[in-house]
Amino acid sequence: MSKYKHLNNLILPQELGSLTVPQCERLCGEIRKKIIATVMKNGGHLSSNLGTVELTVAIHRVFHSPDDKIVWDVGHQAYTHKLLTGRYDRFSTLRKEGGISGFCRPDESEHDAFISGHSSTAISAAFGMAEAMRINGDNHHAVAIIGDGAFTGGLAYEGLNNAGKSKDNIIVILNHNDMSISKNVGAFAKYLTSIRGNAAYLDAKKRVEKILAETPIVGEPIKKFILASKSALKSVLYHSTMFEDMGFVYLGPIDGHNISELEEALRAAKKLRCPVFVHVNTIKGRGYYPAENNPGAFHAIPSAGYDEENPDNNVTDSFSEIFGKKLSSLADADKNICAITAAMKYGTGLQHFAAKHGNRFFDVGIAEQHAVTFSAGLAKSGKIPVFAVYSSFLQRSYDQLIHDAAIDNTHIVLGIDRAGFIGDDGETHQGLFDVPMLLTIPNTVIYSPSTYAELEMCLESAVYLEDGIAAVRYPKGEETVTTGEGDTDSYSLKSNGSKRLAISYGRIVHNLYKAAGNYTDVLKLVKIFPIDEEVKKICMEYSEIYFFEESSRSGGIGERLLTELYQNGYKGKFVITSVDGFVKQASVSSCMEKYGLSENGMRKILERVGSENCAT
Amino acid sequence: MSKYKHLNNLILPQELGSLTVPQCERLCGEIRKKIIATVMKNGGHLSSNLGTVELTVAIHRVFHSPDDKIVWDVGHQAYTHKLLTGRYDRFSTLRKEGGISGFCRPDESEHDAFISGHSSTAISAAFGMAEAMRINGDNHHAVAIIGDGAFTGGLAYEGLNNAGKSKDNIIVILNHNDMSISKNVGAFAKYLTSIRGNAAYLDAKKRVEKILAETPIVGEPIKKFILASKSALKSVLYHSTMFEDMGFVYLGPIDGHNISELEEALRAAKKLRCPVFVHVNTIKGRGYYPAENNPGAFHAIPSAGYDEENPDNNVTDSFSEIFGKKLSSLADADKNICAITAAMKYGTGLQHFAAKHGNRFFDVGIAEQHAVTFSAGLAKSGKIPVFAVYSSFLQRSYDQLIHDAAIDNTHIVLGIDRAGFIGDDGETHQGLFDVPMLLTIPNTVIYSPSTYAELEMCLESAVYLEDGIAAVRYPKGEETVTTGEGDTDSYSLKSNGSKRLAISYGRIVHNLYKAAGNYTDVLKLVKIFPIDEEVKKICMEYSEIYFFEESSRSGGIGERLLTELYQNGYKGKFVITSVDGFVKQASVSSCMEKYGLSENGMRKILERVGSENCAT
Repeated sequence: MSKYKHLNNLILPQELGSLTVPQCERLCGEIRKKIIATVMKNGGHLSSNLGTVELTVAIHRVFHSPDDKIVWDVGHQAYTHKLLTGRYDRFSTLRKEGGISGFCRPDESEHDAFISGHSSTAISAAFGMAEAMRINGDNHHAVAIIGDGAFTGGLAYEGLNNAGKSKDNIIVILNHNDMSISKNVGAFAKYLTSIRGNAAYLDAKKRVEKILAETPIVGEPIKKFILASKSALKSVLYHSTMFEDMGFVYLGPIDGHNISELEEALRAAKKLRCPVFVHVNTIKGRGYYPAENNPGAFHAIPSAGYDEENPDNNVTDSFSEIFGKKLSSLADADKNICAITAAMKYGTGLQHFAAKHGNRFFDVGIAEQHAVTFSAGLAKSGKIPVFAVYSSFLQRSYDQLIHDAAIDNTHIVLGIDRAGFIGDDGETHQGLFDVPMLLTIPNTVIYSPSTYAELEMCLESAVYLEDGIAAVRYPKGEETVTTGEGDTDSYSLKSNGSKRLAISYGRIVHNLYKAAGNYTDVLKLVKIFPIDEEVKKICMEYSEIYFFEESSRSGGIGERLLTELYQNGYKGKFVITSVDGFVKQASVSSCMEKYGLSENGMRKILERVGSENCAT
Repeated sequence: MSKYKHLNNLILPQELGSLTVPQCERLCGEIRKKIIATVMKNGGHLSSNLGTVELTVAIHRVFHSPDDKIVWDVGHQAYTHKLLTGRYDRFSTLRKEGGISGFCRPDESEHDAFISGHSSTAISAAFGMAEAMRINGDNHHAVAIIGDGAFTGGLAYEGLNNAGKSKDNIIVILNHNDMSISKNVGAFAKYLTSIRGNAAYLDAKKRVEKILAETPIVGEPIKKFILASKSALKSVLYHSTMFEDMGFVYLGPIDGHNISELEEALRAAKKLRCPVFVHVNTIKGRGYYPAENNPGAFHAIPSAGYDEENPDNNVTDSFSEIFGKKLSSLADADKNICAITAAMKYGTGLQHFAAKHGNRFFDVGIAEQHAVTFSAGLAKSGKIPVFAVYSSFLQRSYDQLIHDAAIDNTHIVLGIDRAGFIGDDGETHQGLFDVPMLLTIPNTVIYSPSTYAELEMCLESAVYLEDGIAAVRYPKGEETVTTGEGDTDSYSLKSNGSKRLAISYGRIVHNLYKAAGNYTDVLKLVKIFPIDEEVKKICMEYSEIYFFEESSRSGGIGERLLTELYQNGYKGKFVITSVDGFVKQASVSSCMEKYGLSENGMRKILERVGSENCAT
């Protein structure tokens, strides 16, 4: 228990302010231990959370949540925030079913001011809160904490552009660790690095500190001094920062692991009462040698069996790996194939492609909109762009898919990774909307392989046999059934001469094969959309159809198939089993069970005797 | 004919290079006349096109389309480009059915390198082309022309961030006219204005010109000079531009109506062979006094009956106006209501709200992503945000709707303007995807009023009776039937005791009332989603149902209703009449006719005798 003396005994965050700086430092040590122990057991984001320990302590000493609104971008940097705001006792439930989320969730705590799971949202959300405060005459602050990786997303820039013109109490804290998930990319990253070590700014900071140290009650004069020092700096520096150009007072760079320095900067920012940009340098993985040394490998830790000593040992085959390797091998023979990722080189298995075809590999940052429009530009010049992206992040490209690709029937290939249940990351990361989303877009085809071998076939078909948008969607993790070769890239019927038919696609087909037994024929769809005319013909032969879908029900393939069959005169039973609403964090197998998509769940549905026509 | 001497007699764009500068200036005069005459007749974008005449001539003298790729952002600044690239003879068909598009369309001309209709896409698309050229060893250029208004969109920034780190032949031309559609907003606009008149840069430009003038063949030394001059400038200027920070060589500001100056800058940019940012100052509406004086009023001209003398006379009642006035009146009584627009203050009728409640009115620029996340931030602090947005632009907020609003069931109201057929603007602007898109998002309700009076009721219901995302969608233009008061905000059945039922929602309901006559009952849906249990009960009483939908069929209300009725045991006829695929430019009435949604079209469908079960 003495390991967590402060965490155990303090009333947090209220008593945080009573600690001395050395006590804070000890508290930070406890927090690090707690985070490492928990993440190694439960999985989660390690490096980014270890980088923000001191920053979070300083924030909660200077600001008073929930009156001041603390908005964490992405939220996978907010574990310390959770430990400091009433979730220490439940921290062992991190990312577990019924437990606390790995991201910020307003329904979990009043201290989580805004939901976060997707990147680059914090400035916009915090600015909304700041404007509400202004309207209400409330003098509190809205504080957005955002990594340099998230700054590659255009939404962050939109937020900055709007917040910077205001006179609100909004503070944007840049958590600058030179990493997003992979090594950060783009001109902006280079720019940040160029100002990171700027001595003149450091001097300015020291002068601020000095004044602050000499002024117990920091008031208007400080504001004037800082504004003046900005002007003074102009004469010695060849340029001001981009953030000043955008209307912010710039403070920094600050050592993100020095609590005193952080606190002083944040107090100054708080006193300014205008948009302030605080540039904080942090080290991803700070305080844990293996992570500090290889932060990319420790970005997201799976929930069990992690090899700390040799992170590379943790890479096993997965749909992502197979995708990446197959794409790279297609590219060996075809110089037109290009690969695009939005900051997920490793997550999508594209490191294989990048290593061999660096010239045609593009990591565009966390910029899914750009990724699609850029891909369309490549395609217009004769290339075959393949954009590998997680299902839930593809949502950010909806307009670009319609406007920049589909209208002109431009051929781009989407490798949709993490399609279906995602497990511990919860609602914000579930891959359940890609199918309904793509079904609304004309000139789109979708493949949904169930094994590695099918994935390879589907990818090749998507690249060479289709035009327009050709999507291949596959789940997180490993295949559950191994076949030497893919047997189809379209559909496959396993018939026992039964009168009833069960249909599915993707990995859950293998649950269905087991659940169906000998009394139900099974139709596996691989090219799931548009629905094959032959598939419809097959369906018309049956009087009972059971459709299983690891995807959102609304606007999904099940509803579509029923509509099309009805048009052909089908009047039999049609039961859709799929997902409604948002799915909370839980293991994939638990989600399968809950929604009737496990072997067991499917069996129950198939064995259910009833007269219902079309149930959920 | 002498009015268009050059346009009539030149082989364009090839012979453009043979003209003297004074000849070019006369050509520009002809182009202006042609554009004004055509737009006043056909409607279209006037101010923005008058601003880019000289710029376009200069671009086509310096670059060789289609080998050099000219990518116009939004495309409503590209009329001169169309006149210079083989579309002069067909220019009278501008925006007419079967005629040339008001935007860039690759299927219309090889000189239209990329589709454009939505904002902020050009840099990403051009960079895709530039990277393809690099891979291919092709030395041509990709040139993106983008307005300062489009720079408020995050996608532009994502493109800049990626292009700026490359070594490609990519040139970004900023068409800086201080306007997007309304007066441009945001910190970035202020920043641009601050560098617009920067004398030091002008001096640098003059030095470039001088060297260029003295150097017939411009080669490597020029590049070195320009790069050096940038360094030299650093010593006299307190900062370099943001664009240099982002990795571009910055040239400008250039007088956008001086062909010689433009050409010299573009030739320098072309020689540099690296990412170059050319800052061009233009005057929106240039050369046409009424437009120059009031560019906002001349941004988009409707296709007939435009009052040139008094543009304000052209504002008549419309769904947009009614929406804006009603929202303003709700806000009179409720201080929590806030209004948000993405650069469409007038288009959405929010000028009424802005005039009375400026404190709670937010024009966020062309930043639909931010608009939603910002709205969610406002809502989290107790406000009732109402985001008024055109249907096709809402597509850009899909992920923010899911992630930042729906998961947490945050109450934001969407006023979805331009829902349904949009007319002359064509595919990129049709409002046909909002319904299917929103149907995929949990915690969403949709209202679709058919008259002004219903719109007022629906807006009030969306604001006060709903939680989560509450959308009210309404068409462009005026109501076709006037009622004193709205009779419902949910549904209404007009029964003659018939066995067949026709269902619809939105403005086409009034076509249906006329088409149905006495032999078909009519069910008007106003709250269209989720589908009311009572509506389903009513449907179950009929053996034939005809569903009419001014929206995309795939994933729409018709398909959804059929699925839900089937679940309840419905086995009757169900005919959906809706829209498939993308809809080309044509008048709204022509589109209605084509898709069977006019009175006449509906009558034919209702009178058709056949045994089909569920037809399109």
